[in-house]
Amino acid sequence: MKADLLITGISQLVTAKGRGARHGAAMRELEVVEGASLAITGGLIAWTGKSCEWAGHASETVDLEGRAVVPALIDPHTHAVWAGDRLADFDARTSGKSYEEILKAGGGIRSSIRATASATQEELVRLAAPRMARLLRSGATTIEVKSGYGFEPYAEIAMLEAIQVLRASTPARILSTLLIHIPPAHVQDRTSYIADVCNLLIPEVANKKLAVALDIFVEQEAWHVDEAEVMLHCARQHGMAIKLHSEQFQRVGGLELGIHMGALSVDHLEACVPEQFELLAASSTIATILPGVSLHLGIAAAPGRQLIDAGAAVAVGTDLNPGSSPLFSAAAALALAVRLNGLTTEEALMAGTVNAACAVGLIDAGRIEAGLEADFLVLEGRDWRELIYILGANPVREVWIHGEKVEQ
Amino acid sequence: MKADLLITGISQLVTAKGRGARHGAAMRELEVVEGASLAITGGLIAWTGKSCEWAGHASETVDLEGRAVVPALIDPHTHAVWAGDRLADFDARTSGKSYEEILKAGGGIRSSIRATASATQEELVRLAAPRMARLLRSGATTIEVKSGYGFEPYAEIAMLEAIQVLRASTPARILSTLLIHIPPAHVQDRTSYIADVCNLLIPEVANKKLAVALDIFVEQEAWHVDEAEVMLHCARQHGMAIKLHSEQFQRVGGLELGIHMGALSVDHLEACVPEQFELLAASSTIATILPGVSLHLGIAAAPGRQLIDAGAAVAVGTDLNPGSSPLFSAAAALALAVRLNGLTTEEALMAGTVNAACAVGLIDAGRIEAGLEADFLVLEGRDWRELIYILGANPVREVWIHGEKVEQ
Ligand SMILES: [Zn+2]
Ligand SMILES: [Zn+2]
Repeated sequence: MKADLLITGISQLVTAKGRGARHGAAMRELEVVEGASLAITGGLIAWTGKSCEWAGHASETVDLEGRAVVPALIDPHTHAVWAGDRLADFDARTSGKSYEEILKAGGGIRSSIRATASATQEELVRLAAPRMARLLRSGATTIEVKSGYGFEPYAEIAMLEAIQVLRASTPARILSTLLIHIPPAHVQDRTSYIADVCNLLIPEVANKKLAVALDIFVEQEAWHVDEAEVMLHCARQHGMAIKLHSEQFQRVGGLELGIHMGALSVDHLEACVPEQFELLAASSTIATILPGVSLHLGIAAAPGRQLIDAGAAVAVGTDLNPGSSPLFSAAAALALAVRLNGLTTEEALMAGTVNAACAVGLIDAGRIEAGLEADFLVLEGRDWRELIYILGANPVREVWIHGEKVEQ
Repeated sequence: MKADLLITGISQLVTAKGRGARHGAAMRELEVVEGASLAITGGLIAWTGKSCEWAGHASETVDLEGRAVVPALIDPHTHAVWAGDRLADFDARTSGKSYEEILKAGGGIRSSIRATASATQEELVRLAAPRMARLLRSGATTIEVKSGYGFEPYAEIAMLEAIQVLRASTPARILSTLLIHIPPAHVQDRTSYIADVCNLLIPEVANKKLAVALDIFVEQEAWHVDEAEVMLHCARQHGMAIKLHSEQFQRVGGLELGIHMGALSVDHLEACVPEQFELLAASSTIATILPGVSLHLGIAAAPGRQLIDAGAAVAVGTDLNPGSSPLFSAAAALALAVRLNGLTTEEALMAGTVNAACAVGLIDAGRIEAGLEADFLVLEGRDWRELIYILGANPVREVWIHGEKVEQ
């Protein structure tokens, strides 16, 4: 057997081998091969193991000279397409202005909705492309991107179409999600909005394959559980996966709904309580936590440690968005999850690879294993833990997708 | 008048003009010139102002195409020279091991001392050079580097000599500080150690100009105030500036000693209390805060907001070191100071430029002003606040030192 490429000189190869999301203690079973090599054929992993074991030949060899290799990261939660900026909001908030004052000054999420809705597709793509490049440089080769600043159904479609065009501008693999974010102010509008989502938006998105999943923001100030259930049910009927933003500020029941309906993930969970940890542990739904929000807004972090101890499978995302998480690095999200959510380095690695893959509905991704896509990272250092340990610098030296090094 | 270089197309030029460290409200008087240009002659700033005002000529012109320019950052507190790593400590701590267990396993600061003391000068320089490169890329053109892992006097000299050699490997301006870090375990040894510091170490360091300042770690588990006073007094007599690590875990009086003796800065201050804010406000000593430690160790952050409100002049440093702050970005330190210590974006900018300059004894640095060194940063974006707002990516596009762009 002759491989296209043999990569040698790997100080530590973290394979994250084994199927599916890791619950609790099982997360710690991290395979780390010292002095490893990795063979690639047709963009896929052909073989991994100790350097001395490889008896085959390869057309080409690359020597990493003692650097660590880990699976490429998956960012399972971003709002990376937006127009306008929230710098004035940031300035106002950090100068002690209240949220009400910021809203009065025209800030807040509705300012992002206004700016995004009035941008052209070209502008949206031009603005989002460098954000994709930053996430990619930080190690994320698969990136979930949500709509949700569109608000009006036609504008959500426009956002999803922009995400489709964005795909052509980056080597990263983009998965798009239709997000139903905030409701209209009046109850009557809400009912007709939900009707539009179910009768017009979801069928068109499913029909045109503009998104693989539907996400609903369930919160006291956003959608209620019964409203979310109607829309999620409709998405299911149209063959879409489902997920929820939930339990960010209060316990609102989105978590229970998500588990009951078989959601891929419930995301945020800052206000999640112990009995909910058990529900997650008994389910196949991933608990996606977003430490960038905790750092940026100074709010309580999701109980990552307790979730894992209870047996839940935890993933970590950047939640990249201009208002609550201007975090442009998937590796930094993992570094923050250790500091703010109490994960260990091994748990953080699994949360950013295998578990993040499950959170976006991918079974065969997030691992370095024969037969899978050769998506992996070469780190600057020889110890893979630097991926999580280093703060304020990019620990990733090279990003490989489908067996090829991404030019940056 | 003909300048060597005219830089045009500056969307926002933050000059930080005006002398000396900024106390309290005065920190907010940040000059931001929109649509600016900047002229350089002989490595110095020749002129700054609105593009339309420049009547002179330049041999060369560079168009920044609408990017923001800010003064280069100054990192006033690093321990960037060390050997060995503390990854095992990090892993152990984040897996729930106690500090005692980590010490028992051979970890903790004494493991850094052992590894550093047994490294050659070449090794120390080779290990520190990429750290300098990372800090430089993050915007710090002036970097304070402390000894302190030497422990034995001859080993501290070796560290300072390594710092001198390091200087030649980087375009960054390095200022070195002699740090007396942790005392020997037995009281008798402490007394003779202090005698060695005063009779052998300080005179040699001052004589060979190996450091511009002496820094003492004052803490219940480190040096006491009366011990620090003896050593600081000796440094003063030898013409060295002084500074202290103090009030990190308890109120130990290092702050009062530092102010009384005219220290350039007192650093850490996590355990600082309101009556001490007033003492700092009435002094010319800078309060240097280190948010990387708070993030990495999960300990309380220094009361930056309250210090500034009381009128103290606050600087921000990375405290780059392997045990308590693996933070490799001066810009990220400012971003963290806003999130963790309650600074505004303007205060963070001043804390990383003008005030940081004062903390390392520089009067004419940290500003973009005619006659000063042309050290400045070109940001990726058009709004200077992105320097502070962005998390997980480097907001700095170009670093300029003495009127020349640093190749990276
Ligand atoms: Zn979100
Ligand atoms: Zn320090």
